[in-house]
Amino acid sequence: MNGKIRIGIVGYGNLGKGVISAIEQNDDMELVAVFSRRPIDSINIYNEELTVLNNNSAKEFVDDIDVMILCGGSSSDIPLQGPLFASLFNTVDGYDNHKKIFGYFKSMDVASKGSRKTSAICAGWDPGLFSINRILMESILPRGTTYTFWGPGISQGHSDAVRKVPGVKNAVQYTLPVEDSMKRVRNGENPDLTVREKHKRICYVVTEENADKCMISENIKSMPNYFEDYDTDVIFIAEEELIKNHSKMLHGGFVIRSGKTGKELINNHIAEFSLKLNSNAEFTANVLVTYARAVHRLNKEGIIGAKTIMDIPLKYLTRRTFEDVCTNLL
Amino acid sequence: MNGKIRIGIVGYGNLGKGVISAIEQNDDMELVAVFSRRPIDSINIYNEELTVLNNNSAKEFVDDIDVMILCGGSSSDIPLQGPLFASLFNTVDGYDNHKKIFGYFKSMDVASKGSRKTSAICAGWDPGLFSINRILMESILPRGTTYTFWGPGISQGHSDAVRKVPGVKNAVQYTLPVEDSMKRVRNGENPDLTVREKHKRICYVVTEENADKCMISENIKSMPNYFEDYDTDVIFIAEEELIKNHSKMLHGGFVIRSGKTGKELINNHIAEFSLKLNSNAEFTANVLVTYARAVHRLNKEGIIGAKTIMDIPLKYLTRRTFEDVCTNLL
Repeated sequence: MNGKIRIGIVGYGNLGKGVISAIEQNDDMELVAVFSRRPIDSINIYNEELTVLNNNSAKEFVDDIDVMILCGGSSSDIPLQGPLFASLFNTVDGYDNHKKIFGYFKSMDVASKGSRKTSAICAGWDPGLFSINRILMESILPRGTTYTFWGPGISQGHSDAVRKVPGVKNAVQYTLPVEDSMKRVRNGENPDLTVREKHKRICYVVTEENADKCMISENIKSMPNYFEDYDTDVIFIAEEELIKNHSKMLHGGFVIRSGKTGKELINNHIAEFSLKLNSNAEFTANVLVTYARAVHRLNKEGIIGAKTIMDIPLKYLTRRTFEDVCTNLL
Repeated sequence: MNGKIRIGIVGYGNLGKGVISAIEQNDDMELVAVFSRRPIDSINIYNEELTVLNNNSAKEFVDDIDVMILCGGSSSDIPLQGPLFASLFNTVDGYDNHKKIFGYFKSMDVASKGSRKTSAICAGWDPGLFSINRILMESILPRGTTYTFWGPGISQGHSDAVRKVPGVKNAVQYTLPVEDSMKRVRNGENPDLTVREKHKRICYVVTEENADKCMISENIKSMPNYFEDYDTDVIFIAEEELIKNHSKMLHGGFVIRSGKTGKELINNHIAEFSLKLNSNAEFTANVLVTYARAVHRLNKEGIIGAKTIMDIPLKYLTRRTFEDVCTNLL
């Protein structure tokens, strides 16, 4: 017992690897083991000191892991794994299916209250840090509008969709905020923006030999849901260029609240929060790890159940003492 | 009893007037009375429906006011008034003497615990919203640097200092962040910045007749503490222009965290929060009023004592239900 927060990771993909790296930045934490739903033989382990086990072994670690960080996907992994792990461990996740958050909260709250554990849900950057800014700034400027713009960044779902178009060998899709619309928001115009006015899309595409580029471009741009409602650029490049220039998982975005105060609402105010991330997975991992610290502390104080970013005070996130924060950060 | 949060205001200056206007934006609140340390006859009341009383009458309102919002100055008013009012009422203030916050916290905590009341201290934008971002982003990106830039905005203290220079009839001083330094920070260079590299100053000055402009300019630029360490522009204008173009209490600023993750810290991330305010007093008032809601709710739950922005979860600020936030803001 060295007093460190003992972390377990569920899911050994990009996010799980990001969490390993994030723990190394926080010397009040240590990694105990990584759990995967895949057969262990199939996992390519880059660090031989790492303990990688199957999810089924996790229950043997209830006394050895303080917080389990769930790094699976939000569509099928987390909805099942969340309540399962929360019935044994404190947990943190970045569940991001916005429309199903309240239902997920309820199932996690039941599970973690049953085990007298604490779980932080939806603790990434959107939902997560962006949500903090949406709640805070709407509360402070009730007469106004909140805008969320995403990008410039890579969307995995859209990249996958492009890769399925016949003749496409490889592709990367960037989502970009429309600069002119952001400018209007920052000017306090409070515009009503259509889907097309908020974001545009750029696809970097590597084709199979002798593919019909014109047809590919047309097929991408007319794809319902994914591209039809957006202005989309399709740019054909060589595979080496794709690998060289488009391999980083860039992402980010903007939450802008524009609101008015005073007699006849003459005074406009703009509050803006933005992220510019060179690695989406690594940054998200850092957020998860910070909330793992909070979850551990909350549970030690007897505060159990599912919690969101609106329930957890900042004092549980920081490693500084209260006096130190008062003196140096307030 | 209509269930509204009953607000009292201490201090009838720009901030107090901003709070009156802020309460009008929040129909879960109502204004009961304004208290002033000045003799009541000397106050110019712009609204005849307003009850303005001397501070000495406040104690008669202990059963009629849920939260008292302290709008006096941080140098002499709030350090004295804070503990006095906190021994009778729930309070909110925007105390902003950064170096003395911990001492102020202790005196407010004793006072409000003694009365079983709740006080939110330092709940403006800096300290306040900027502090939230400094705590949050340092916790998430431990390998990095946080930069705070203020402006473009009017500094009252510096404007007053310019007005005291012989030959100056009237003046307004703007603090501006140095754009080039902000650019370097946003590029992830993590520069060490001197005082001069962070901010510059512009003074709009109206002179007395036949004043020596060259001498005035020299006297301003060489003023210790206020201007000596900065690049300062002095611009002479006519009084009508000063009144027409420089009467708004513009302010704002930027909190930027630049931090790295990953193997050999190769991936850089930038988190930025900014405010662009057309009325410093009105915006600050809106923040105070939002924390008044939180203080009222905390006290009803039996959570007493002095609280800062790091102690108060966001759920106490918003008027939305938990389910509504989950569905629409997370």
